[in-house]
Amino acid sequence: MKQITASIITIGDELLIGQTIDTNSAFIAQELNKIGVWVKRRVAVGDNESDIWQALDDEGKITDIIIITGGLGPTADDITKPLLCKYFGGKLILNHEVLAHVTYLFEKVYRRPGPLMEANKKQAEVPDVCTVLHNARGTAPGMMFHKDGKVFFSLPGVPHEMKGLILNEVLPVIQNQFKMPAILHRTAFTVGAGETMLAEMLKEFEPALPASIKLAYLPSYGMVKLRLTTIAVTNEAGEKEIEPYFEKLQELVMEYLVTNKDEGLENVVADILKQKAKTMCTAESCTGGYIAHRITSVPGSSAYFLGSIISYANSVKENLLHVSPHTLSIKGAVSRETVTEMVAGALYKLKTDYALAVSGIMGPGGGSEEKPVGTVWIAAGNKEKTETTRLNLRFDRNRNIEMTATYALNFLRKFILNNP
Amino acid sequence: MKQITASIITIGDELLIGQTIDTNSAFIAQELNKIGVWVKRRVAVGDNESDIWQALDDEGKITDIIIITGGLGPTADDITKPLLCKYFGGKLILNHEVLAHVTYLFEKVYRRPGPLMEANKKQAEVPDVCTVLHNARGTAPGMMFHKDGKVFFSLPGVPHEMKGLILNEVLPVIQNQFKMPAILHRTAFTVGAGETMLAEMLKEFEPALPASIKLAYLPSYGMVKLRLTTIAVTNEAGEKEIEPYFEKLQELVMEYLVTNKDEGLENVVADILKQKAKTMCTAESCTGGYIAHRITSVPGSSAYFLGSIISYANSVKENLLHVSPHTLSIKGAVSRETVTEMVAGALYKLKTDYALAVSGIMGPGGGSEEKPVGTVWIAAGNKEKTETTRLNLRFDRNRNIEMTATYALNFLRKFILNNP
Repeated sequence: MKQITASIITIGDELLIGQTIDTNSAFIAQELNKIGVWVKRRVAVGDNESDIWQALDDEGKITDIIIITGGLGPTADDITKPLLCKYFGGKLILNHEVLAHVTYLFEKVYRRPGPLMEANKKQAEVPDVCTVLHNARGTAPGMMFHKDGKVFFSLPGVPHEMKGLILNEVLPVIQNQFKMPAILHRTAFTVGAGETMLAEMLKEFEPALPASIKLAYLPSYGMVKLRLTTIAVTNEAGEKEIEPYFEKLQELVMEYLVTNKDEGLENVVADILKQKAKTMCTAESCTGGYIAHRITSVPGSSAYFLGSIISYANSVKENLLHVSPHTLSIKGAVSRETVTEMVAGALYKLKTDYALAVSGIMGPGGGSEEKPVGTVWIAAGNKEKTETTRLNLRFDRNRNIEMTATYALNFLRKFILNNP
Repeated sequence: MKQITASIITIGDELLIGQTIDTNSAFIAQELNKIGVWVKRRVAVGDNESDIWQALDDEGKITDIIIITGGLGPTADDITKPLLCKYFGGKLILNHEVLAHVTYLFEKVYRRPGPLMEANKKQAEVPDVCTVLHNARGTAPGMMFHKDGKVFFSLPGVPHEMKGLILNEVLPVIQNQFKMPAILHRTAFTVGAGETMLAEMLKEFEPALPASIKLAYLPSYGMVKLRLTTIAVTNEAGEKEIEPYFEKLQELVMEYLVTNKDEGLENVVADILKQKAKTMCTAESCTGGYIAHRITSVPGSSAYFLGSIISYANSVKENLLHVSPHTLSIKGAVSRETVTEMVAGALYKLKTDYALAVSGIMGPGGGSEEKPVGTVWIAAGNKEKTETTRLNLRFDRNRNIEMTATYALNFLRKFILNNP
């Protein structure tokens, strides 16, 4: 079966000066992948006619489907629509359905008084050679073009508008026009072992994989994802092929395995707590609420997460978590004793089954000879017992916060499994 | 002066299936921009020899500097190094300095017992046609190649290793080899006005800009950045040219202006509090610690941020923040009355000058006819008074959390400025 390929072109100077991180491409790639389209290239170009033109030309030669995002807002820095018109040989005409939708949004949803502004009216103008794709979430319509047997989609760059268009308009059209193979991924998520160590554990497994199955190592802050990929005629055939190898892979790295789904640690902890009908809370110093944020980013987290005390200042550790002034002055805020007392205080105050506490030095300032930047103490506990561990991280503040959260959630996960 | 241009090529299937968001490119683009290099294109390709080869060929034709990241880890899914060797016409040889560094890292820093693993030894092999760039933060060395008058840099994809190499090795080499113009940006950060409304306010300003100055609208969650850009022979000349227009721009959007630096609201609030020597805390329900996280992501935030009570459950609102059970049952957890009492409770418990409280329904579940998903109450207060506002957000959970944090921080900023 012929593989259907796609290119993603993102337009905008802000991507080229690094002011904006491109999250749109990852979303589009994920969704295309799910329906069996292989994204071959992603290209970002500036708000510049000749660069956009060249990208359209280049990608149109290489892949079957070209998805363009950005350059469709109401303001004057947008040059994409006139250019698309020229590229596909059409002219701009007013689309009355789009105009009615824009008018509806301004009157009923945004509740802006007065007549429509000129710039918003212009959003209802589209090339007469395109098929309009309805943007339920905003004023800039999506557009579909055909050229030399290839399909081009142009979508606004605002993430939630782009997402709506991909899910409701673009994917159904692609599934209708192309016949795709199934692309299957299986991801084992490990924490605690480096890439090389895992490769050592898999040194007989990997060369023995059939040519149709590919293994990738995806290292990230504090964890490594091991991903198997196969392309098959049907989902069922692909599953039958990949599952035995995925089982074997999990066995080989069992010691470090956290989950066999492509999900965050916060989801893993969520599933365990929901299954056991237990509750948790956090007491955070150095992570400043980031662990609680990761936990509450999971929909439905209120079922097991009751709250946190973010004790950034020592006064809050004393007053709200009842860490003794003696411990703070003798052992310091970053110590086994302090996080142990933080767990006790959190359990008492928040009345949960489990508590997770962290205290550390995230940098760039605040380090000392004895406790350099990157020193972190973690404690997880319940009414019966509390366990602690120490991290020695290196490098920058954001990375230290991210890694502390990952290691702390994993430490809690193990504690709950060992102390049900 | 000839503009020096660059392409960034990121390698990795994980970027094409959307498993990883590419933050490396944004960092590299930012740093290149600072020294006057214009990033013309960013391309992502998979772990596939012919796709990488084509990208090297294409980009080498278009730009002066080509920066490649990814594909340099110790494991077997990496094919970049042999390919670079072939592409630039060299052969792999063992580099003894790199080997010594890898050995040092494993013995002294990672403290792994036993001899070096084969995969790690192989990291010390480099093409004999490259200049090795020292990677102080990891085992995979950076490499520099020259071909047809263009410079190619190959860097590992692990963000903190890539960052170290860019700052300490790549930028100095580029500044040494090329003569760059100055690229200047000035960014005005607005909250509360949409793109179209701002364009309306700037409809006489924008057409009157000289050809050398470009205005861009960068909409994001709950805010719009207005960015002026100019390219000049020297920094001084550029500043002289851009400043009067930037002053004018700020005047025109003054009502919605939050800061004239390219920084987050958490930095703006930080500066105000430090300047006034005041302290703050948060009481968060629906944002689950995300506001506290944004505040504590600023180095030195312990000077003004004391802590938070994350009251996800109503029991925590009652027990720790002293919200009355009567208010919770009559008015509900998402109400003006509840956030007002949360501010009072937080001020009392955390003993700060200011407190910020939020409670809302982030979705996807939990909405009702009267209080649909996206309903949020915000309160900011001090000992004398508390002010509240209501948001009606739409769409997905993550976006609602992000926008609530932005609006809440802006609400607090205004409250502090009005109630010093």
